[in-house]
Amino acid sequence: MEREITLADVEAIAIGAGILGTGGGGNTYLGRVLLEKEMSERGKPCRIIDVDDVADDAYACAIGGMGAPTVGVEKLPQGDEYMIAMRALEEHIHAPLSAILIGEIGGSNALRPLICGLQMDLPVVDGDGMGRAFPELQMDTFAIGGLSLSPMALADCHGNVVIFHHVDSPRRAEQYGRLLTIEMGGSAALAMPLMNGAQMKATIIGGTLSLAQRMGELVLDARRRSVESIDAVAALGHGHVLFRGKITDVERRTVQGFARGRIKLAAFGDPNDTLEIVFQNENLVAWRNGELVCTVPDLICILNLEDSEPIGTEMLRYGLRVAVIAMPAPKELKTPQALAVVGPAAFGYDVEFQPLAGDLLM
Amino acid sequence: MEREITLADVEAIAIGAGILGTGGGGNTYLGRVLLEKEMSERGKPCRIIDVDDVADDAYACAIGGMGAPTVGVEKLPQGDEYMIAMRALEEHIHAPLSAILIGEIGGSNALRPLICGLQMDLPVVDGDGMGRAFPELQMDTFAIGGLSLSPMALADCHGNVVIFHHVDSPRRAEQYGRLLTIEMGGSAALAMPLMNGAQMKATIIGGTLSLAQRMGELVLDARRRSVESIDAVAALGHGHVLFRGKITDVERRTVQGFARGRIKLAAFGDPNDTLEIVFQNENLVAWRNGELVCTVPDLICILNLEDSEPIGTEMLRYGLRVAVIAMPAPKELKTPQALAVVGPAAFGYDVEFQPLAGDLLM
Repeated sequence: MEREITLADVEAIAIGAGILGTGGGGNTYLGRVLLEKEMSERGKPCRIIDVDDVADDAYACAIGGMGAPTVGVEKLPQGDEYMIAMRALEEHIHAPLSAILIGEIGGSNALRPLICGLQMDLPVVDGDGMGRAFPELQMDTFAIGGLSLSPMALADCHGNVVIFHHVDSPRRAEQYGRLLTIEMGGSAALAMPLMNGAQMKATIIGGTLSLAQRMGELVLDARRRSVESIDAVAALGHGHVLFRGKITDVERRTVQGFARGRIKLAAFGDPNDTLEIVFQNENLVAWRNGELVCTVPDLICILNLEDSEPIGTEMLRYGLRVAVIAMPAPKELKTPQALAVVGPAAFGYDVEFQPLAGDLLM
Repeated sequence: MEREITLADVEAIAIGAGILGTGGGGNTYLGRVLLEKEMSERGKPCRIIDVDDVADDAYACAIGGMGAPTVGVEKLPQGDEYMIAMRALEEHIHAPLSAILIGEIGGSNALRPLICGLQMDLPVVDGDGMGRAFPELQMDTFAIGGLSLSPMALADCHGNVVIFHHVDSPRRAEQYGRLLTIEMGGSAALAMPLMNGAQMKATIIGGTLSLAQRMGELVLDARRRSVESIDAVAALGHGHVLFRGKITDVERRTVQGFARGRIKLAAFGDPNDTLEIVFQNENLVAWRNGELVCTVPDLICILNLEDSEPIGTEMLRYGLRVAVIAMPAPKELKTPQALAVVGPAAFGYDVEFQPLAGDLLM
């Protein structure tokens, strides 16, 4: 069933997507401003459809930004990169696209498909390929489910578009795409994977846009009532609060096209009670006083303690007073096939994935 | 009029293309072996046509290897990269290609289109876009004549193909293509530019395959008669011998996807009479005892003194006894528009182009 997203919904979606982004997916403030502008200028709402509304033989394609959040927050988009990438794919396959998918629900990557949907007058499907954000292309349920990532289009802010006509593996798409993204200035617009409705239904994580919206509405409602919403947010994602404290150290470098680093936090009232988190665009592993407490693919989200505003890895800084919440990953990310691609070992960490109880969407 | 190239012609073409390569374009020995194998296995000759044989509305595309000659001589091709790139372009534009163009007549890039022509059963046009070899994509008469370099296809040895659907300038094609080529292992198969027959006739340098063949036949004939052919080769290209001597120093690095460096030579009998040549894949500028004697786009070719075998920049080594010949560039490379792209300043040399008298093809 088709529903609408209006101007009044955008802030909530941006907040929820920022939380689900686990630090990455792109700065949601910028995404929100751009979506609100597009919506105001066109005077129309975004069209949202359910997974089942897409015909099995209709073509749909996911989009998202590729690059480091540290770059995206400084290098603003031209605005039409995603549409240019989608149009190039349509030209390449000589067929029209019927719907836009959200590649990753985390961060501003949840908002870009909404902007592109307005520009192309296409509906956006409620769901995505991650249920969170991940740094690399092979890390979505589309690739894990066996879909080819080619043809895939990558567009820069000058109107240049490159189509990966054939790649022999999702990791190759990541390798060549990352390289070009770096040369394109560290951020680029990606359209992939192309799929039909049947393939989509077999691989998507449904309902994540609605989850982001509900999460953001919860935060906004609490703000209006001047109450803290940290615990309620964690509960909505079937998780819990890991830590409350102050950021005491941030190491962050933009290398190989990613924002990589680690942060340290100290608990309020007990500076010897510490939490350490490592990240590659997204928060990956957390240790409390040296003991492993949460690992990817479960979600590690850092929220401003005052107002539950999510804090991206590009915005982390000394002195911020935050809460860290942990939420279980969607079940689609916890199969053996998925964990081989998105488990801690896939990021180079020699720790075991000890799943939190439950699932993000239950 | 269509003519044939048979096994008996291949060695001559390889030698001539090696000479015109001015040090670059890829190792001709490897190219020759691969062409002879393809021809033997298929038991058929290559079909060669003249520029005027291509209908104005038929599509043709040039091909050539991208990368450093130092890489190409060690990393052998899979063999079908060029056909894969051409087929991807056909799929992209939804139209068949009618003929193959030689992107650059220098080095093994003269031979690869002949191999691909056999594989695709397509004729190869007698002519190219350089009349020599150049290191960068924007440096051909197609780009100088205003043709777009997109769509352009780049294929690696694993069957991966990337199509540059739109690039905003020939230099952008070079920038993004070079980057991907480096990631593809330092050499890749390039198909570009796509053009119709009318565009081809307006921009190609005609007859250069025939010139390469005549030059090689001259060398082979002299070898059979055990006479030196250095002067005769230079005369056939309307040039002259710059220097005879021994290579006394070679500096060469493979950087940013190119073989870059400089060599020094000392004259026989007078070690104080020296020649210095700088190169970027191809020989670019020559100074004799500190005085400028020849610059790009004129051709600076290094030949083995004994048998006139051309020596690519990847094969230069201390102690080789060589002749250096200079030949005037084709007139198409000496217009103000062309010199802005292929003159010494375009390579970062603050010297004036003092053209040799005449033209390569008169």
